[in-house]
Amino acid sequence: MRLTRYFMPVLKEDPKEAQIVSHRLMLRAGMIKQQSAGIYSWLPMGLKVLNRIQQIVHEEQARAGHIPVLMPTIQSADLWRESGRYDDYGEEMLRITDRHKRDMLYGPTNEEVITDIFRAHVSSYKDLPLTLYQIQWKFRDEIRPRFGVMRGREFLMKDGYNFDLTRDAALHAYNRHLVSYLRSYERMGLQAIPMRADGGPIGGDYTHEFLVLAETGESEVFYDSEITDLKFGSRAIDYDSVEQCQAVLEEFTSRYARTDETHDAAIFDQIPEERRRTARGIEVGQIFYFGTKYSESMGATVVGPDGNRTPVEMGSHGIGVSRLLGAIIEASHDDKGIIWPEGVTPFEVGIVNLKQGDASTDSACEALYAELKSKGLDPLYDDRDERAGAKFATVDLIGLPWRITVGPRGLANNKVELTSRRTGEAVEMSPQEAVSRLVEVYQPVKDAAL
Amino acid sequence: MRLTRYFMPVLKEDPKEAQIVSHRLMLRAGMIKQQSAGIYSWLPMGLKVLNRIQQIVHEEQARAGHIPVLMPTIQSADLWRESGRYDDYGEEMLRITDRHKRDMLYGPTNEEVITDIFRAHVSSYKDLPLTLYQIQWKFRDEIRPRFGVMRGREFLMKDGYNFDLTRDAALHAYNRHLVSYLRSYERMGLQAIPMRADGGPIGGDYTHEFLVLAETGESEVFYDSEITDLKFGSRAIDYDSVEQCQAVLEEFTSRYARTDETHDAAIFDQIPEERRRTARGIEVGQIFYFGTKYSESMGATVVGPDGNRTPVEMGSHGIGVSRLLGAIIEASHDDKGIIWPEGVTPFEVGIVNLKQGDASTDSACEALYAELKSKGLDPLYDDRDERAGAKFATVDLIGLPWRITVGPRGLANNKVELTSRRTGEAVEMSPQEAVSRLVEVYQPVKDAAL
Repeated sequence: MRLTRYFMPVLKEDPKEAQIVSHRLMLRAGMIKQQSAGIYSWLPMGLKVLNRIQQIVHEEQARAGHIPVLMPTIQSADLWRESGRYDDYGEEMLRITDRHKRDMLYGPTNEEVITDIFRAHVSSYKDLPLTLYQIQWKFRDEIRPRFGVMRGREFLMKDGYNFDLTRDAALHAYNRHLVSYLRSYERMGLQAIPMRADGGPIGGDYTHEFLVLAETGESEVFYDSEITDLKFGSRAIDYDSVEQCQAVLEEFTSRYARTDETHDAAIFDQIPEERRRTARGIEVGQIFYFGTKYSESMGATVVGPDGNRTPVEMGSHGIGVSRLLGAIIEASHDDKGIIWPEGVTPFEVGIVNLKQGDASTDSACEALYAELKSKGLDPLYDDRDERAGAKFATVDLIGLPWRITVGPRGLANNKVELTSRRTGEAVEMSPQEAVSRLVEVYQPVKDAAL
Repeated sequence: MRLTRYFMPVLKEDPKEAQIVSHRLMLRAGMIKQQSAGIYSWLPMGLKVLNRIQQIVHEEQARAGHIPVLMPTIQSADLWRESGRYDDYGEEMLRITDRHKRDMLYGPTNEEVITDIFRAHVSSYKDLPLTLYQIQWKFRDEIRPRFGVMRGREFLMKDGYNFDLTRDAALHAYNRHLVSYLRSYERMGLQAIPMRADGGPIGGDYTHEFLVLAETGESEVFYDSEITDLKFGSRAIDYDSVEQCQAVLEEFTSRYARTDETHDAAIFDQIPEERRRTARGIEVGQIFYFGTKYSESMGATVVGPDGNRTPVEMGSHGIGVSRLLGAIIEASHDDKGIIWPEGVTPFEVGIVNLKQGDASTDSACEALYAELKSKGLDPLYDDRDERAGAKFATVDLIGLPWRITVGPRGLANNKVELTSRRTGEAVEMSPQEAVSRLVEVYQPVKDAAL
């Protein structure tokens, strides 16, 4: 993308309304615009990152054998009366009356709708196991929305639901989700630690939250420092294998890691003191096994191998897709701006033309731009007629992991400069070498894709 | 995808509630499920087609230089009071009160929000031209929702907005949209005819609707039969060229083609009688030039080259994304079911195993499946333990354009059968030839992609 043809309205001043760094940087980088309290428009670059995160989630769900659907945002209250949650849910549910005076609502989560789909179409154990998921907008009418997309009212979430015949099969689905979530977060450049949590309004006492450590996290967390050494990495896994998924669960949940909701000081104190950690965390996902809570109240049953009808075993599993942008920035920034992990960056590299309008510099930039695109990379070419300082400040603020600086002096020796946003390290090399180096850097991102 | 691992709940019986063929076939093929009046869940195969249509729209918008954003579904009534439309819009607007008793609404269209984004961030003519668009869910509280996704309440629409300094530049944007829409519809296998239309609640008297001819269309249309001979095809176009875009507009709009809203019998009667046509059409898109209607009321101005502030010239442009599934099916089906155009089919080919469980037939199917996937095609393998008749009926119903039938008798001579859904023609060939033939068939679809 050429910047003069893009819409990336960066702000020069720090916006007053932003209390935390991710909110401030998303506004400054022109990624979002507030439309009303807790409700945002996604400007082009914000949307681009949102889409990259969605793509990772979709790919990892596909890998785990989960099937995408899409449920409507506006739902009938009747379904929620069946499960008993219409009255329970409280003021966070946005309740709506349509022109025919029917009670509707904007879905804050979708256990009811998915159970309704299931009971309408599935009646035999032979169609199990089945996991359906979606990435769709949700609304929770927070009393005090704040922190930008971290605690918005309209937010994008992945929600998935497993349907199984037995408790064991449902627990395997739980483990499978845990594995797929570990992979998803790592591909986004995040370490998200599964911690024992509380069921809340979804229900169930078998649940883990995934937390990203960050000073601005809303939860206090307690953990054994050994847990931060764990990496899922690029290991191969067979999602159908009960043993393999169980082993990952055990590896990642056997050490102490809990939120304040489930923290138990007596157990925590048994960890050697030098490994005891207290920190703050941002919740970026949660998985639940809740058995037959919804299938019983809503009559979602299957005929088992013995010919008897039995309520289906279920769980639900969420990733806070729009909130992840905030979490990634909280975990990865400096005083100049955002530092995107390679897996989610809106553009793989920024090209800074130091002398816009100079024929040979312009043509070198154009050639680089075309060459990077031909290699499947997506560069942002800053072709504005601005001084170098302003261009550097912009590319640092918006957080592109790599920058190629092109100026007449270097070009005289066939050199450009490749700079890492994270380390600040700058190396002179030929344009061809810069392209090869970037192809190499992004190879793991491509390899991780489905 | 293997059918036994998919969720494609086809119905054996015709659903009673469906009055038109597309609604009936989408329900029967397990593409959608009604959740309440005019509100649907998208089941996996329906979502897959919806995504293919979205992909085409995104690619063609990118080609035209338009930039994607995403606006929230829930909006503040205050913005709509500024434009004066909050009171005008009537009962189709879903009005909502949040927990703080603020007036909100579910966006039925987004001229107000996009103008608000523009005025907050753009103040100089140097940032023009600019066209922003989104594909996002909208809600219109139709009094009598019907015809499935053709006239639903919650629906997916592409809406785009151009911002230009002068009327001429805005008219070029109008033409550019017309061209990009012609390309988009043709890639979906549709002939959508631009017809002079009425501005309605968007405003402006410079507007064309795109209509697909179909018996079940809601509009009566009148046209010169020469217009149906026009094809945009794969011609190259420079979207920045005023002349090229203007020439396409003239080519596609100089012959008589109007909806009942703008029909003029006196002009129509001047067409030679043998070319006069009256038919019914389904509206699948509309483009508008409305000048400064919103920019004046909402104060969206730019400083021009002369240093004076002037309200920006605008237009808006919509494609009915979810409705297109209905329109495509209305235009392309037979008594056995849907016939998907190659450009939007959920799966490029169905593999029917005539003897599931037979080792050599199974392994031939698996090999075909793997080979097709390695060529970038997405096959649906019917690996159910069902009789051939049921498998044929399913693949015909769901409308895959091609079927490969694999049975022990043919395999003995290294033959499978490749059948066209549209013509019914079946040809015996080796599995390798079938793969090559399909690669060839889908080459134009790949070539049309960005």
